[in-house]
Amino acid sequence: MSRFREPQHPDFQRLNVSLGFDRRLWPFDIAQSRAHARMLAAREIITAADRDALLHGLDAVEAELAAGSFPFGEGDEDIHMAIERRLTELAGPVGGRLHTARSRNDQVATDVALYTRDRARLAREGLGELMAALLARAEEHLDWQLPGYTHLQRAQPVYLSHHLLAYFWMLARDRERFAFAARQAGRLPLGAGALAGVSFATDRDMVAAELDFPEVAPNSIDAVSNRDFVLDYLSAAATCATHLSRLGAELVLWSSEEFGFCELPDAWSAGSSIMPQKKNPDAAELLRAKAPRLLGRLTALHGVLHALPLTYNKDLQEDKEGLFDAADTLELELRAATGMIAGARFSRERMRAAAGDELIGATDIADLLVAHGMPFREAHGVVAGLVRASLDQGRSLSQLTPAELGQHSPALAELGESYYAALRPESWLESKVSVGGTALARVREQLQLARHALDADVTDS
Amino acid sequence: MSRFREPQHPDFQRLNVSLGFDRRLWPFDIAQSRAHARMLAAREIITAADRDALLHGLDAVEAELAAGSFPFGEGDEDIHMAIERRLTELAGPVGGRLHTARSRNDQVATDVALYTRDRARLAREGLGELMAALLARAEEHLDWQLPGYTHLQRAQPVYLSHHLLAYFWMLARDRERFAFAARQAGRLPLGAGALAGVSFATDRDMVAAELDFPEVAPNSIDAVSNRDFVLDYLSAAATCATHLSRLGAELVLWSSEEFGFCELPDAWSAGSSIMPQKKNPDAAELLRAKAPRLLGRLTALHGVLHALPLTYNKDLQEDKEGLFDAADTLELELRAATGMIAGARFSRERMRAAAGDELIGATDIADLLVAHGMPFREAHGVVAGLVRASLDQGRSLSQLTPAELGQHSPALAELGESYYAALRPESWLESKVSVGGTALARVREQLQLARHALDADVTDS
Amino acid sequence: MSRFREPQHPDFQRLNVSLGFDRRLWPFDIAQSRAHARMLAAREIITAADRDALLHGLDAVEAELAAGSFPFGEGDEDIHMAIERRLTELAGPVGGRLHTARSRNDQVATDVALYTRDRARLAREGLGELMAALLARAEEHLDWQLPGYTHLQRAQPVYLSHHLLAYFWMLARDRERFAFAARQAGRLPLGAGALAGVSFATDRDMVAAELDFPEVAPNSIDAVSNRDFVLDYLSAAATCATHLSRLGAELVLWSSEEFGFCELPDAWSAGSSIMPQKKNPDAAELLRAKAPRLLGRLTALHGVLHALPLTYNKDLQEDKEGLFDAADTLELELRAATGMIAGARFSRERMRAAAGDELIGATDIADLLVAHGMPFREAHGVVAGLVRASLDQGRSLSQLTPAELGQHSPALAELGESYYAALRPESWLESKVSVGGTALARVREQLQLARHALDADVTDS
Amino acid sequence: MSRFREPQHPDFQRLNVSLGFDRRLWPFDIAQSRAHARMLAAREIITAADRDALLHGLDAVEAELAAGSFPFGEGDEDIHMAIERRLTELAGPVGGRLHTARSRNDQVATDVALYTRDRARLAREGLGELMAALLARAEEHLDWQLPGYTHLQRAQPVYLSHHLLAYFWMLARDRERFAFAARQAGRLPLGAGALAGVSFATDRDMVAAELDFPEVAPNSIDAVSNRDFVLDYLSAAATCATHLSRLGAELVLWSSEEFGFCELPDAWSAGSSIMPQKKNPDAAELLRAKAPRLLGRLTALHGVLHALPLTYNKDLQEDKEGLFDAADTLELELRAATGMIAGARFSRERMRAAAGDELIGATDIADLLVAHGMPFREAHGVVAGLVRASLDQGRSLSQLTPAELGQHSPALAELGESYYAALRPESWLESKVSVGGTALARVREQLQLARHALDADVTDS
Repeated sequence: MSRFREPQHPDFQRLNVSLGFDRRLWPFDIAQSRAHARMLAAREIITAADRDALLHGLDAVEAELAAGSFPFGEGDEDIHMAIERRLTELAGPVGGRLHTARSRNDQVATDVALYTRDRARLAREGLGELMAALLARAEEHLDWQLPGYTHLQRAQPVYLSHHLLAYFWMLARDRERFAFAARQAGRLPLGAGALAGVSFATDRDMVAAELDFPEVAPNSIDAVSNRDFVLDYLSAAATCATHLSRLGAELVLWSSEEFGFCELPDAWSAGSSIMPQKKNPDAAELLRAKAPRLLGRLTALHGVLHALPLTYNKDLQEDKEGLFDAADTLELELRAATGMIAGARFSRERMRAAAGDELIGATDIADLLVAHGMPFREAHGVVAGLVRASLDQGRSLSQLTPAELGQHSPALAELGESYYAALRPESWLESKVSVGGTALARVREQLQLARHALDADVTDS
Repeated sequence: MSRFREPQHPDFQRLNVSLGFDRRLWPFDIAQSRAHARMLAAREIITAADRDALLHGLDAVEAELAAGSFPFGEGDEDIHMAIERRLTELAGPVGGRLHTARSRNDQVATDVALYTRDRARLAREGLGELMAALLARAEEHLDWQLPGYTHLQRAQPVYLSHHLLAYFWMLARDRERFAFAARQAGRLPLGAGALAGVSFATDRDMVAAELDFPEVAPNSIDAVSNRDFVLDYLSAAATCATHLSRLGAELVLWSSEEFGFCELPDAWSAGSSIMPQKKNPDAAELLRAKAPRLLGRLTALHGVLHALPLTYNKDLQEDKEGLFDAADTLELELRAATGMIAGARFSRERMRAAAGDELIGATDIADLLVAHGMPFREAHGVVAGLVRASLDQGRSLSQLTPAELGQHSPALAELGESYYAALRPESWLESKVSVGGTALARVREQLQLARHALDADVTDS
Repeated sequence: MSRFREPQHPDFQRLNVSLGFDRRLWPFDIAQSRAHARMLAAREIITAADRDALLHGLDAVEAELAAGSFPFGEGDEDIHMAIERRLTELAGPVGGRLHTARSRNDQVATDVALYTRDRARLAREGLGELMAALLARAEEHLDWQLPGYTHLQRAQPVYLSHHLLAYFWMLARDRERFAFAARQAGRLPLGAGALAGVSFATDRDMVAAELDFPEVAPNSIDAVSNRDFVLDYLSAAATCATHLSRLGAELVLWSSEEFGFCELPDAWSAGSSIMPQKKNPDAAELLRAKAPRLLGRLTALHGVLHALPLTYNKDLQEDKEGLFDAADTLELELRAATGMIAGARFSRERMRAAAGDELIGATDIADLLVAHGMPFREAHGVVAGLVRASLDQGRSLSQLTPAELGQHSPALAELGESYYAALRPESWLESKVSVGGTALARVREQLQLARHALDADVTDS
Repeated sequence: MSRFREPQHPDFQRLNVSLGFDRRLWPFDIAQSRAHARMLAAREIITAADRDALLHGLDAVEAELAAGSFPFGEGDEDIHMAIERRLTELAGPVGGRLHTARSRNDQVATDVALYTRDRARLAREGLGELMAALLARAEEHLDWQLPGYTHLQRAQPVYLSHHLLAYFWMLARDRERFAFAARQAGRLPLGAGALAGVSFATDRDMVAAELDFPEVAPNSIDAVSNRDFVLDYLSAAATCATHLSRLGAELVLWSSEEFGFCELPDAWSAGSSIMPQKKNPDAAELLRAKAPRLLGRLTALHGVLHALPLTYNKDLQEDKEGLFDAADTLELELRAATGMIAGARFSRERMRAAAGDELIGATDIADLLVAHGMPFREAHGVVAGLVRASLDQGRSLSQLTPAELGQHSPALAELGESYYAALRPESWLESKVSVGGTALARVREQLQLARHALDADVTDS
């Protein structure tokens, strides 16, 4: 019997029912119910016989869910009620004992925490695979030259290995973000009841241990109203997707005829419905396009929590669809990025030709003047004048004669042969000897660091 | 034959294929295909026989789609390709002629524009129903008093009709927003081809007329890359949802035991899994909670378009899911709000008791002093002192004697009986005689205006 | 005297005081005070002498504010209080009469509405200038060829005029958005009082007429809590900034050595602190970068309004900084875009070379086959095979002999000379004869339309 | 001499110049310059005499900046250039040597990282103070009863200490978020040069040690384009502000006449310009209102980074204003929350009266039936029927006689006296004995945990 006289309006049910999306929580709901039942028996809140009947029933329910044969009913509002209903059908009235010392409020929070931990783990795995692919391609293209760009203008040449590793380190930080999110989801809500705790002497540590939570949430009110860990997951996902959007944007750019630095594998490209010649980098574009979607999910949940009084409010139901979509999207993105990175064919010639643009050497001429004692700012001015003259005359820097150089600055003339040597790309590249720089020895150091970082997380997770 | 050698990677297909969500565009795709076929024949680009075969085939395809018997295939990337494939199966090779002088780029943009116009219309209809419900309840509760709040502190009493009409006018503005979005979606993209126009002397005005577009898009490049109208729809939806979140928040507040201003209908309320006494305003909470979801959809599409070079890019595929979800959510929200407003039972007693809080009359005392010649700022100070004294002494303002009033200010004593009269709620309410104010005569004027506004749009849409 | 015993905490003042940013509302506050004073006298709420004293005092205050000599005081919480305080200092106690029949709630809402209308007007002016610049450059570069891109792959050649006009139409729509925002800000809040109207028989229509508001807000509660028009302004600004981000992104791309389609004027470019050769498109990058800032402002205000109960709440103070920053940013962006567009030097040679990529002609070959009776889908397949063969053999499409063509498809061989003619860029361009297409005659039509659209708004605003 | 012929357009400067906001980076710029100069000398890239001259000059510049007497010039584009210019004026041409082996790209990234670390530290301090205030008030109000709410409906009574501690734990998690952000900002960018490293054998570890960075950034490309740590700071700030918005919303609610649970201190309250009786919780409202502002800043930076190709782009200049504003806002919010929490006067009577609502005891009756062997679901139904009957008859649950109870369910009658005992608030409260629950013994445990958590971070930071 209910305290209500009127049935729910069908539109209210449409708005309210979460079964359409929360059914994917079932493995976690089953897991927590098992742990809860065992604890109830251990504390003698239910009998051992009841526990066994519940566990047996949960096995049956799980089997149906796994097989896709679970009979969802019209009245099932959410996956939690559906499972409990079915459990009672299969196991008899004892099924009703499972909700002892538990509320839907702490139950849902626990399922979502378990889910978040699981997807954070999968994100880290996907990141590890993409990092490994980047590392492998970096090793293959150790000394392939291309221009480094600032402001999308050629600035200084770098090795492709160095450029690919830049993404490696972004993703390594993302793994730390997901590890943080998992830690934040690591405080067990179960046992908080509706909001105030429960009237039974439960053993929350036992449940936490079985479900692999490092801690129990210390405050029942906070436990049922806390969705911070979903924010943490979504923030990690949004940052990671932003990184992937940069990678996607570069792949699109590099695949253009104008850059021509790489060709994406056919398996990750699309044709055109009308232009038969087209080979479009659709996957790279979608990589670029998905970051705002994940950011939208993050901002939505922040908005939901904004100004929300304690404790549980129905608004919190809005936590799930965003989380699910973000996790699905991100993991697929990571696989797509891995596939594209693994299969991209880089064009050594096109990249080298672009890197050979002599103006890129201008900074090194300035550095050379500094090494000969000129303050940097003065050297910068001398070389800027030289660049302007060379552009005006349509001649390259290396075509200027020592006499002409002397007209700009006596110091330039004094550089002698070292002036011309500095304008060769190889010397620019190998001159960047500082730690983290692009000189080959430094990149080799970095590869070793990266290999170590990659392995470290694998052990840790 | 394709220009590709490798098949697409399954994960690429998962990322790329839009059939899972864009299939709901089918009615619009069929409609535009019919219009396109007729135009092609009218311009003699295809024969009348071909046109008839195409139209006949489209009828068959439509019937299958409407009946749910359409045989989607594994290779169907999107609804457009699926329909064309099926058309060719049913109508024979002539099906291939339908894509003459059309590209997926202008085809998709046209479907999305048609869809946006349709959902904008539905939003306006839903708004009209909610406005009508508010108007009806305002008429029923014309002179029911309740406090108007500023800063959630009781400020000045108003009539419930006046308060409900505040929402009416917000929603009336939202109708204007959706009308604007529909106008922005009213420039036909079809005919722009892939980006540059098509090599056939098409008649875009004919297609526009058949599909009820007031104009044709004047620039083919813009036509295929423009999704502004989706932004306009989403912006309207986000603003409308923000209004509904305010309504939801007030319903939650008013349903609390502390306020007790209204009780929501059982049909729009929920119980608790653990607390049998609870009657929870879940629908009102969800009304409150959904605005950030819609805002997240708006921000996501802005993000997708950010920095996107012209013309069509695959990123634009991200336009649809947000639009669909926003429209579904908003229309359901409007029905829920209508149901709750129509069914809410207001408590005349609780509202009147709160409105009778005598401190609310303080402003009127100040106005009275002004009417007797005291500058407003001075009057404000006099009354503030009076309030403080009354709070300190634990006495109400009307319990102060003329002698005591005189001690505060001679002007107060001079008010005589009018001082005590001004402290009766009825006088506060009826004193607000300015246009748009809460005096009954003004509210009656406003009801008439509202009735007129409601009817106006019905005619217009 | 106040009802408070304790002074405000300095940190509360830091949080609360809005004078730091709202002082720029002063011209609007003065204007509304003038109109209000005149109306009060017209309705005999104050005397003509009081009115004149107030108007005289307001003149003096305005002069101080305009000259920068206005003596702001420590206790000035906001610009409204500062002006009223100063007015009373200059005009004597009559200054206190100005707040008769007015509350800060309707006063602030009115200032913000006036401000919004003003900035919407300025945005439209700035848009008009940028549109004029685009139109002028389009006319100058009527028949300059460049590739149109889809997926950043060369797709079909277009004229630069056509491409520039694509931006023209985006901006034309933005003008409509700002006009809409101005209309939404066109309902006068003043007269709503704190929330319930005022106890005086005011004449709101008179104030509306003087301040150029087409209507008065019909509901006092809504009038003080409504900030929709700021949302409308911010939404227009965010969409416009998103357009400008696309323009900025293309200018960055086109300025790269790889594209080389244009060179930005020195006056809008920056050097590098370390690389003397660099010429960086900083202004174009900032155009690209600002859209999310404006979007952030829009989302922030949506968030502020989310779930906010009626009527006025202090939260609404968060409306101003975002609006001010958005307007400043957008207008500066529009000037920057105008400067860059007006001064950019396009490279006819680089663009033509890119447009001459013969693969771009593939679609036209397919269209040719269609014109000879082959269904489009079949033609698409034939040409896709041709493209693959030509890429495999490293030969261009026009190097294939009629005999080789015949091996692919007899229909190809039958095309004869028209096959080779179709592969010349001029023919691709001029083949796009549909309305809105890139053929010169169509672009000329479009220029005329654009000229007309540009002039239309000037008259209207 | 520059490579440019035209001067910069004034509007370009307005758009480009960052001195208006980045000047607050000066302490960090001076600090890094000192460390850089010392390192250059240690590696013999400059002489010891040069180093001393630079350090001496930096002291003088710092003194001017600290005193506010630093002469900013028209041409100063940013704080970095201003300091270097002034250094050269004061120290002579040697000033130009400071930029050796450094680019503005790594210099700016380093300043921003230093700044982020500093503000993360300040946020943690502010959090610690608010946590301490919450803890102190919790200890003072250990056993004050109030209703715990779900769905804003009274659900189960809790102690005020327990409720206040819920916020304590939210903030404790926020401290972890800021610690995470600080760690992410703990990899030194300096030494990365423009993007590729520098041509000098620098000692980055020495600089890192002096500036207290735990690590050096391992990849120069990533180092100059990385702003992840700002995202991490902003994400922490947005989550923290969301928590504060919930606190603010509850303070507003509790300060209403309807709830009447607390009165905010005068020092954190405001009056009304028109209603002399009003005491408004402006500070609490602003606490509620600021979260979307910070979220807007986070989303803006995500948007800026979206799809941005490597390495440095001018777009990154958009990182600072949001960061500065977020930090200022958040720290002020934390102080305001601390002030309000410390000064709020709670009303024991109003809270207890609300907590005594007998319907709240319904769950405990259900639990009692469970303890007597009835499955929970069945017990829930029995009690729901009881509640409906009691509401229908207008009688409280404790007014029902044993006979009447027996009519509902024999099991109810069997409860005997324990039925009536369970309806006393004290028993409800003390029945929640599970870990983290609201029974006094559990709250005392929690207070100890909280005290420990508070102290732990103080030691750690």
